[in-house]
Amino acid sequence: MNYSIIRYIVGLTLILEGALMLPSCIVAVIYREPALWALGISVLGCFAFGLLLRGRKPENTEFFAREGFVAVALCWLAISVMGAVPFVLSGAIPDPVQALFESVSGFTTTGASILPAVEPLPKSILFWRSFTHWIGGMGVLVFLLTILPMNGGFHMSLMKAESPGPSVSRLVPKVQTTAKILYLIYIGMTVLQICLLLLGRMPLFDALTLSFGTAGTGGFGVRNDSIAGYSVYNQVVITIFMILFGVNFNAYFFILFHRASAAFKMEEVRAYLGIILAAILIVTFNVWHYGMFDSLSKAFQQAAFQVASIITTTGYSTVDFNVWPEMSRTMLVMIMFVGACSGSTGGGIKVSRIVILFRTIRKEIWTFVHPDGVMKVRVDGKSVDHEVVRATNVFFAAYFAVFAISVLLLSIDNLDSVTNFTAVAATINNIGPGLSLVGPATNYSVYSARSLLVMIFDMLAGRLELFPLLVLLSRRTWRKF
Amino acid sequence: MNYSIIRYIVGLTLILEGALMLPSCIVAVIYREPALWALGISVLGCFAFGLLLRGRKPENTEFFAREGFVAVALCWLAISVMGAVPFVLSGAIPDPVQALFESVSGFTTTGASILPAVEPLPKSILFWRSFTHWIGGMGVLVFLLTILPMNGGFHMSLMKAESPGPSVSRLVPKVQTTAKILYLIYIGMTVLQICLLLLGRMPLFDALTLSFGTAGTGGFGVRNDSIAGYSVYNQVVITIFMILFGVNFNAYFFILFHRASAAFKMEEVRAYLGIILAAILIVTFNVWHYGMFDSLSKAFQQAAFQVASIITTTGYSTVDFNVWPEMSRTMLVMIMFVGACSGSTGGGIKVSRIVILFRTIRKEIWTFVHPDGVMKVRVDGKSVDHEVVRATNVFFAAYFAVFAISVLLLSIDNLDSVTNFTAVAATINNIGPGLSLVGPATNYSVYSARSLLVMIFDMLAGRLELFPLLVLLSRRTWRKF
Repeated sequence: MNYSIIRYIVGLTLILEGALMLPSCIVAVIYREPALWALGISVLGCFAFGLLLRGRKPENTEFFAREGFVAVALCWLAISVMGAVPFVLSGAIPDPVQALFESVSGFTTTGASILPAVEPLPKSILFWRSFTHWIGGMGVLVFLLTILPMNGGFHMSLMKAESPGPSVSRLVPKVQTTAKILYLIYIGMTVLQICLLLLGRMPLFDALTLSFGTAGTGGFGVRNDSIAGYSVYNQVVITIFMILFGVNFNAYFFILFHRASAAFKMEEVRAYLGIILAAILIVTFNVWHYGMFDSLSKAFQQAAFQVASIITTTGYSTVDFNVWPEMSRTMLVMIMFVGACSGSTGGGIKVSRIVILFRTIRKEIWTFVHPDGVMKVRVDGKSVDHEVVRATNVFFAAYFAVFAISVLLLSIDNLDSVTNFTAVAATINNIGPGLSLVGPATNYSVYSARSLLVMIFDMLAGRLELFPLLVLLSRRTWRKF
Repeated sequence: MNYSIIRYIVGLTLILEGALMLPSCIVAVIYREPALWALGISVLGCFAFGLLLRGRKPENTEFFAREGFVAVALCWLAISVMGAVPFVLSGAIPDPVQALFESVSGFTTTGASILPAVEPLPKSILFWRSFTHWIGGMGVLVFLLTILPMNGGFHMSLMKAESPGPSVSRLVPKVQTTAKILYLIYIGMTVLQICLLLLGRMPLFDALTLSFGTAGTGGFGVRNDSIAGYSVYNQVVITIFMILFGVNFNAYFFILFHRASAAFKMEEVRAYLGIILAAILIVTFNVWHYGMFDSLSKAFQQAAFQVASIITTTGYSTVDFNVWPEMSRTMLVMIMFVGACSGSTGGGIKVSRIVILFRTIRKEIWTFVHPDGVMKVRVDGKSVDHEVVRATNVFFAAYFAVFAISVLLLSIDNLDSVTNFTAVAATINNIGPGLSLVGPATNYSVYSARSLLVMIFDMLAGRLELFPLLVLLSRRTWRKF
């Protein structure tokens, strides 16, 4: 294990985090909030620890998948811990475990909160809270890649470890350029959403923070009732942008630099939009049937918002879907697991994995029927690499193993099963609200510190797609031989 | 597709079923019950349909995996339908869908019931109900193999399609002899249990039916309170035999014909006993902590019974564990999925698959850490065939896909999520009782006929390990080319 390069990268990441806290300091200055001190100390802390860890550039630049996984896992732990400092110092969340939960929930774009109400918090702290979504959405190490001139094959190892989905495709031969293009698309779309929300007469502060939350598919709001208090126009804008940020960003690259038709030919994007449409229709019909809304159009608009919010793993809410009929609740829990496209900012299992899953089952049946034939799992007309199919299957196995153990650990708190099950589902899939005691109208402070630590692990495991954390925890990684 | 041989096998199976109904007729004669007519007509029906379908022995004996899957799926459908006839004709369960549910629940050794009370039923019908467990436990086609002189490679195809677990191992070179040995062990152990229960002063009728239910890991009782009313001695005997029938039968073969140490070296058996011990200790401590029982020994005895009943997918109960604290409930739901050993009469995912699953995850982490190394998934010291690992992964994928779709379909009935989730878990894993509205103290009649049909599919899919039913439903199977 090349420890010096890992130390170097963690140091750089912390310095970057300090810089990314500066906008929140400006907000504190504008609103003349005492939280400025908390943020200022945190910035200095990031810089100090960062410079200390970075030290001199290491001579040994050997960097393999193993180093990539460990570096990514440690960077995310480090930024989460430092990101929690402003919450504690400002007195917004005095309890360190709860503050860490909120910070991890921010960076992993989960949006699960232990706060019963957000409106009493300082604006600058709310700004930092939402900004962590935006940083975590596209990945902090991917951002590092775009600004640092680093050579060698380690770009790909880092990107592979941090990017969601079963396979990472380079849009252009150079990984660094790929990362830059992705970030430019990300920034462009965020700015566009801010403008459209401002057009809908949303206050600038709300437009900024909610756009960060949408772009990162996070879900932290700045009002106690999440998005329910905003106009229908603004709700529709957020609905559309949630869906857009859940699309594989390669599609936007195709639209910008190639032909738009190539984007719509991507099977993952088509499956994603198809699932969304089906889910919206089922939920609309179901809530309409049970008389939850006055008009069918209102039911459709609300169903669309909730479905988009959950499948993209954003977690904003406009209604308390915990009181919806059982089929709608079940549908929402199901799409919690599906998640957004790979290569988007959304979490969950990812649509591409679901597509590969169903293709694999179909192939298996085909093999039983035609024992002599050979059939390949195909996506987008190309046969999927055997290694990707295998990795997808192992991902499922590890996913359900982590899921089951987490639910068992949460059950020690003796809350009901629906709460435990959906709390794990909502954190491992980086969504935010679950059902029952962790529904949209409630929060995660019902859980003990031990359970919060379990869910902190789940949020990080979900965001980093399990293996970086599992590699970090494996004894073999640290064994010398 | 070789239709004539499939028709021939289904015919033979029905004739066999008719013969297996005769003991129930004797019970009707002894107790002078009018249900004799219902059973008699059913026997004649089985013989008539059986002879009609069997016809002459087909000349084309071509038999591949495809034919094996379709034959097994159709045989199980046929025996389930004919097995439901006595329930309808005797008036015990007048509704045909409910009767089919009960019959499928019997043959698949699930033990889920739509009956609010079993004591008013005729003894002969109760006998038939419990006997279906015993028939289904070891497999009706495996039984057919033991008594019919058939040549060719089709023994293996049938056995593979009907036997549980990721791989079928022949104990002796001849498949037919293997099947005979397995059935002899099965009969021997059943007789031993009957004797031990009689020693505990259990009435003969109860000893017979409960032993059938234990041997098949079914769970239909003959009293309204399941096993709660019997003595502690008899509860302990049943606990031990439930665990024994969940062991891979190969272990008994080793004990009888080789060295006993070989049986205890089987990793699946050790993992199975380890999980049982861990689960019993956790549940004992948890229910004791919440003061559910007066003494620790009572808590241990009751925890052991419930854990054994659920992990072996039997489904007998002595207490209403639905009112137990959340951690015990969660633990029981978790071991619902684990299930018993492969090559036993129990259902669920099977311990061997869980072992392979964790080995696969470990291997994946290992591969990240040592990118150049080669590591094989090993069980019992031997490296597991790549094909078995792949099939195990695909099994998981198909399992969770069927699971999710079933829960969604059940949610239309608008019952609560815990009921729906555990109802699917308890039927697809062939256990019996779930939690909430389908807990040990309640029954499945709360569901609509549509939902019962979904669970009938799940029970068959669970017993036959998904693929026979999925192959049967696949359009490709029936396409000519």
